[in-house]
Amino acid sequence: MVNFRTDLALERRDLYKKANNIAEEVEGLATEQETAGEDINITRVKVLNEAGEQAIGKKKGNYITIDIKNLKIATEPEIQKASEAVTKELKTLINNLVGPQDPVLVVGLGNLYVTPDALGPKVIQDIDITRHILEYMPDVLDKETTRSVCAVSPGVLGTTGIETLEILKGIVDNIHPKLVIIIDALASRSIERISSTVQLADTGIIPGAGVGNQRKELTIETLGIPVIAIGVPTVVEAATIAADSLDLFIKKIQDEAHSNDFLNQLQEEDKYEMIKEVLQPADYNFIVTPKEIDELIENMSSVVARGINFATQQ
Amino acid sequence: MVNFRTDLALERRDLYKKANNIAEEVEGLATEQETAGEDINITRVKVLNEAGEQAIGKKKGNYITIDIKNLKIATEPEIQKASEAVTKELKTLINNLVGPQDPVLVVGLGNLYVTPDALGPKVIQDIDITRHILEYMPDVLDKETTRSVCAVSPGVLGTTGIETLEILKGIVDNIHPKLVIIIDALASRSIERISSTVQLADTGIIPGAGVGNQRKELTIETLGIPVIAIGVPTVVEAATIAADSLDLFIKKIQDEAHSNDFLNQLQEEDKYEMIKEVLQPADYNFIVTPKEIDELIENMSSVVARGINFATQQ
Amino acid sequence: MVNFRTDLALERRDLYKKANNIAEEVEGLATEQETAGEDINITRVKVLNEAGEQAIGKKKGNYITIDIKNLKIATEPEIQKASEAVTKELKTLINNLVGPQDPVLVVGLGNLYVTPDALGPKVIQDIDITRHILEYMPDVLDKETTRSVCAVSPGVLGTTGIETLEILKGIVDNIHPKLVIIIDALASRSIERISSTVQLADTGIIPGAGVGNQRKELTIETLGIPVIAIGVPTVVEAATIAADSLDLFIKKIQDEAHSNDFLNQLQEEDKYEMIKEVLQPADYNFIVTPKEIDELIENMSSVVARGINFATQQ
Amino acid sequence: MVNFRTDLALERRDLYKKANNIAEEVEGLATEQETAGEDINITRVKVLNEAGEQAIGKKKGNYITIDIKNLKIATEPEIQKASEAVTKELKTLINNLVGPQDPVLVVGLGNLYVTPDALGPKVIQDIDITRHILEYMPDVLDKETTRSVCAVSPGVLGTTGIETLEILKGIVDNIHPKLVIIIDALASRSIERISSTVQLADTGIIPGAGVGNQRKELTIETLGIPVIAIGVPTVVEAATIAADSLDLFIKKIQDEAHSNDFLNQLQEEDKYEMIKEVLQPADYNFIVTPKEIDELIENMSSVVARGINFATQQ
Repeated sequence: MVNFRTDLALERRDLYKKANNIAEEVEGLATEQETAGEDINITRVKVLNEAGEQAIGKKKGNYITIDIKNLKIATEPEIQKASEAVTKELKTLINNLVGPQDPVLVVGLGNLYVTPDALGPKVIQDIDITRHILEYMPDVLDKETTRSVCAVSPGVLGTTGIETLEILKGIVDNIHPKLVIIIDALASRSIERISSTVQLADTGIIPGAGVGNQRKELTIETLGIPVIAIGVPTVVEAATIAADSLDLFIKKIQDEAHSNDFLNQLQEEDKYEMIKEVLQPADYNFIVTPKEIDELIENMSSVVARGINFATQQ
Repeated sequence: MVNFRTDLALERRDLYKKANNIAEEVEGLATEQETAGEDINITRVKVLNEAGEQAIGKKKGNYITIDIKNLKIATEPEIQKASEAVTKELKTLINNLVGPQDPVLVVGLGNLYVTPDALGPKVIQDIDITRHILEYMPDVLDKETTRSVCAVSPGVLGTTGIETLEILKGIVDNIHPKLVIIIDALASRSIERISSTVQLADTGIIPGAGVGNQRKELTIETLGIPVIAIGVPTVVEAATIAADSLDLFIKKIQDEAHSNDFLNQLQEEDKYEMIKEVLQPADYNFIVTPKEIDELIENMSSVVARGINFATQQ
Repeated sequence: MVNFRTDLALERRDLYKKANNIAEEVEGLATEQETAGEDINITRVKVLNEAGEQAIGKKKGNYITIDIKNLKIATEPEIQKASEAVTKELKTLINNLVGPQDPVLVVGLGNLYVTPDALGPKVIQDIDITRHILEYMPDVLDKETTRSVCAVSPGVLGTTGIETLEILKGIVDNIHPKLVIIIDALASRSIERISSTVQLADTGIIPGAGVGNQRKELTIETLGIPVIAIGVPTVVEAATIAADSLDLFIKKIQDEAHSNDFLNQLQEEDKYEMIKEVLQPADYNFIVTPKEIDELIENMSSVVARGINFATQQ
Repeated sequence: MVNFRTDLALERRDLYKKANNIAEEVEGLATEQETAGEDINITRVKVLNEAGEQAIGKKKGNYITIDIKNLKIATEPEIQKASEAVTKELKTLINNLVGPQDPVLVVGLGNLYVTPDALGPKVIQDIDITRHILEYMPDVLDKETTRSVCAVSPGVLGTTGIETLEILKGIVDNIHPKLVIIIDALASRSIERISSTVQLADTGIIPGAGVGNQRKELTIETLGIPVIAIGVPTVVEAATIAADSLDLFIKKIQDEAHSNDFLNQLQEEDKYEMIKEVLQPADYNFIVTPKEIDELIENMSSVVARGINFATQQ
């Protein structure tokens, strides 16, 4: 299997196609594209069956990628427009899974004190919570039209000592939501996608680089209710940057007719593993994030929180 | 019953004695005092029976108040010394409740984004977590001497929509600690005690000003395991300040043998200077700000910045 | 002179009128009121001459108070509307002092790390700066319509060791703006005005509780160019709260025709409930915390965390 | 001239030696090395004359690099030890330039709100300020042994609209210090050096990636008094990572006998420019920082602030 180094189904599909020289659609996948105005591209990758699962290493289900251009310098109306794209896609996923009044638990994964990992907890701050109002002040809200929404930031294993699944399982069993929406930071191949892309998936997630423990996934299998994952790329591995640059670099050399057999070979091989091996001894393969990450994460938090708020209410 | 306006057992005892003109110990209580160096006073109030419970409205058990002088300008060694006093008292409470290897869950109540309520979550950041290391890297730590410690900040009802008890009950039932230690912000009568006093109690707590719902207490009765509460005063009500000031003020007037006529005239005069004079020796006239200041300042920043932006351009 | 305990010209005028039993306007002042929608009140106090200066202890000039109701729970459009009121008043002041293309220096006084003092530096973050763009990328902006705006947060004496005037004087002499706009935190009499009121003044300011050094004022006299001050109340003194409460309290007692004997008894009774009852209708009983809370909480976090760390291990 | 992509004199010297196949010392430089315990390496590069200046593009003067291993997981005593190394080197530089009582202005360059650029402002918060105490409370400190120290964070051009030099020139001319110590974030070639290395220089600095404007340097020539620069690497360019990885990668391929003429050529050429050119159209050459930067910057701030505090006082 290809070592994808990305959590985005869309990037995995593209890598698989390139690695296997596939011109059309990958077997077991169905993809459609759409634009929402000038700055927003939406790609829907559907994993149809086991063939699709094996090709890109993602569970059967829907993966929607929303790419937002120039989010870093976005104005208030542009942020609002991006959040509307999230609302629309998220609403469709929610309505396929639960009824309009079914209670939802929103979960912000990550560590507030590590900038590229802070998106989940930041989004949680801006979620419109209704569960306690419906319970303690039922006259304030319209029970017919208001969905019960609650939210938690469970922290990360390194600072709590508790697996996220252990915390969420306990809460879900106690308060009985019908759907979990999880926000998490992802790894991507592309620096351009850092905090500028949202992936929605109706298949749940496996958190963190983690302990490689398959039982700790956050899915309908482990939590007992459907799980929608909202992922935002915030990190790219140093080795990925190097390998991707090398690709571009070799291409340019070839274009300039420096071509030789060895270079042609290089492009076919998996340079990433070789580069990673080279960097490893020096503990050089830091996960890297762009300098502008603080600003980008603020804007993306607004986009995602608004998207959830409008999607969960009528 | 006296309306105490304080969560500190020690202050409640003093108010009860004053209100009932009791010179010696209150029936049902046992109190002892100790100093730990120049700047640290320790008072242990034991509520012995129902008589004590009714007198001060606190459950049967141990309440230890550690008052630390000049913490605001404390140096590193003074902070270390104060923490040692907390260690000593807390260790005694823990050893009375569980064995040396029994796992502990530490809980930081409160809201990180509201300064006077942020103490609990801030403490959690600095807790040394061992549970995950004992589980996933057991060779790193000495299993014979290392207690399993994990920690969570469950957030507050207003931002999660979930009662703290609902969250903690779920986690406790899933990960089976033998003891919970909860950190919370308290109300006090005394501005001098703001973030300068620690109260340890082996009786658990009732969080928040809350919904007045007795079932939501965090105690051995609701969680099924012993609960130690570590409370730190961070707020004093404005009316408490006013009432306490009035006490001091009237006492001063009476001491100076002013007639009742003088009291009648009070409204015409400038009482502020007199009150200030009264408060001065006790360094009582702190500048105070409302608890909501963080939130208000965010909104006001937008108002003023936009005002300037639009005013300076055409 | 009355000890006003407030930086707001409007509150000073009201206090002066009350202290001197003046029904109409104070000599030397001219006042006008206006509302801008439901939630915004604007009061313009003009100090006309030396009589006015002596009455309220404020320099000759214009003092505009904009009171915004419910800012704490304001929505985006309400924040926008409030900012428009500030824009309108500020624009008038600016146009009276300088031309439409004259460069402006915006100064945010205060300490970012002390919550009630952070407003100035926070505002600066959101100012649209044009000076460097006009200088280095002149083609990007329309020189005919864009005013040169730059901004600094000079910090406070306690953390820089330098008087604000020394820093600003140096900058003004080097970059030659024609107007300074200074944002600062103020003291008010009214808890309701905390971060809900803006005072604009075309007379400059005297920063901080300070060293009582008249030469350190920030005015046209010291800086050589006009100074507009934008002040926002963020603090109320505890003694002010107590004194104001006492006023209300005694008035209520007299209204209810209690005898002086009753006042003598006061010390024995529980005044808190009575005061609370008095304060309730005005929503006056905010929970208050001392200004130093941020610093204190840092130290206390260390104390408690270390206490737990050492107590849970052997 | 070699395009160094690093602000560290030490790295520039190494690159120059490699590019020119120099085995011994570069002409015009003198270098000495020292270790301070297990985890601290000190390298002193002296630029002796114009030949040295031209070789590495750095002014005549002293450049001291202090490399600290494992700062990310440093304990309190290790941070203290690292700060002592900074103190010792800094004290020597200071004593060569000014007398023991001469007043010092400490300047923290950078933007507090962009994590990798926040080091300067963070250090300023921890500097022990004495100037205002010596002026307003002279009895508190011993005038014979206390140096006057003051500090400012002037902000960055993008948020102030004012060149750093314009702000500092104004302040220096007003308060007349005899020495400026400037803290700044640097670019390095090595991810391992991110927030783990301090460079001290007695030659001043040229701030920012900047506008390429030589007059805006902060040196004795522009400020009129000596300038010591304390630089900490916090960023590495994406193209640098890619180019350096490519070097390692090609070396590994050659070691594994894939060798061919073209690869041999590659190592000699400047791959950086080619890679940069490749990345440019996609705006791909983000400056990158490791994910752990928050923690590293906290520790490094402590090291530098303590270093300055002990070095400026006796």
